[in-house]
Amino acid sequence: MPIVQVEMLEGHTLAKKRLMVEKVTEAIVESLGVPADKVTIIIRDMSKENFSKAGKLACDQ
Amino acid sequence: MPIVQVEMLEGHTLAKKRLMVEKVTEAIVESLGVPADKVTIIIRDMSKENFSKAGKLACDQ
Amino acid sequence: MPIVQVEMLEGHTLAKKRLMVEKVTEAIVESLGVPADKVTIIIRDMSKENFSKAGKLACDQ
Amino acid sequence: MPIVQVEMLEGHTLAKKRLMVEKVTEAIVESLGVPADKVTIIIRDMSKENFSKAGKLACDQ
Amino acid sequence: MPIVQVEMLEGHTLAKKRLMVEKVTEAIVESLGVPADKVTIIIRDMSKENFSKAGKLACDQ
Amino acid sequence: MPIVQVEMLEGHTLAKKRLMVEKVTEAIVESLGVPADKVTIIIRDMSKENFSKAGKLACDQ
Repeated sequence: MPIVQVEMLEGHTLAKKRLMVEKVTEAIVESLGVPADKVTIIIRDMSKENFSKAGKLACDQ
Repeated sequence: MPIVQVEMLEGHTLAKKRLMVEKVTEAIVESLGVPADKVTIIIRDMSKENFSKAGKLACDQ
Repeated sequence: MPIVQVEMLEGHTLAKKRLMVEKVTEAIVESLGVPADKVTIIIRDMSKENFSKAGKLACDQ
Repeated sequence: MPIVQVEMLEGHTLAKKRLMVEKVTEAIVESLGVPADKVTIIIRDMSKENFSKAGKLACDQ
Repeated sequence: MPIVQVEMLEGHTLAKKRLMVEKVTEAIVESLGVPADKVTIIIRDMSKENFSKAGKLACDQ
Repeated sequence: MPIVQVEMLEGHTLAKKRLMVEKVTEAIVESLGVPADKVTIIIRDMSKENFSKAGKLACDQ
């Protein structure tokens, strides 16, 4: 039943997202011992206006 | 004070969203016994590129 | 595929949680037209120390 | 390590977002005593179709 | 309507949490121009077993 | 900057969590091409009373 949410800066290609969900699903299956069909992943793309570290937006860094 | 977040695949009409928030609010009020005006719902639309089950993106299924 | 997260103040009985997930699942099925077995709900219990409205913790209200 | 997620109605200018992340970061630093470079903020813009209070979407209020 | 979620390592006193929600609420009010009674904050305490940076749990660092 | 949140049923050992964050971090690094020290993972343990599929709590299945 693991549900994984991945927030990342926008701009990754579909090919990278496809690879990411394959690899993260495998990582969960191998480490937690749950079947792959129980692993759900939600991706959220953030714009650089919507992410801040140390009080500074990514678009200003 | 319940705060409900609903992640769903994009493409639902405004009419469906309107009905959904009415019905989910009622469901929370009736089951938990809180007043309707304390129930907040956030909807998040996911593209098919951003949802994966069993290591496969929804856009590839 | 809807994934529903419900944040609520702690202290609800198991019977209320059971009723809540039944009713919220029905509400999603009826409004969005998805099958019940695609509806996942995560409940998160908040202590009164961990919820604030208008700058005041629930335990101080 | 605090990670702050801010859901807000869309339409705020970049200048307001910039000010918000500065001020929220300061607020976390001063109250919790963590260094600013450990404070991460994610902003999520909601459309008025995607926010409901008391069973009514913001776009219908 | 801003809803703020703050994930932080467990162990902060009630006094620190109280100060944090006051200051974060003020920061939101001043930067976004929303009234204080529209600002909701949810705090989530993480144990050191439940937070990882660079592939290492906080309890192992 | 990816931030990964993993919701899973409680009861996994510390050793499993340690392995999981190592492997998920690697998966993100290899697929998205970001450095490991930019990858943050938050784990949330759910009790069986707090997870529902198809309208039924995990503790009732």
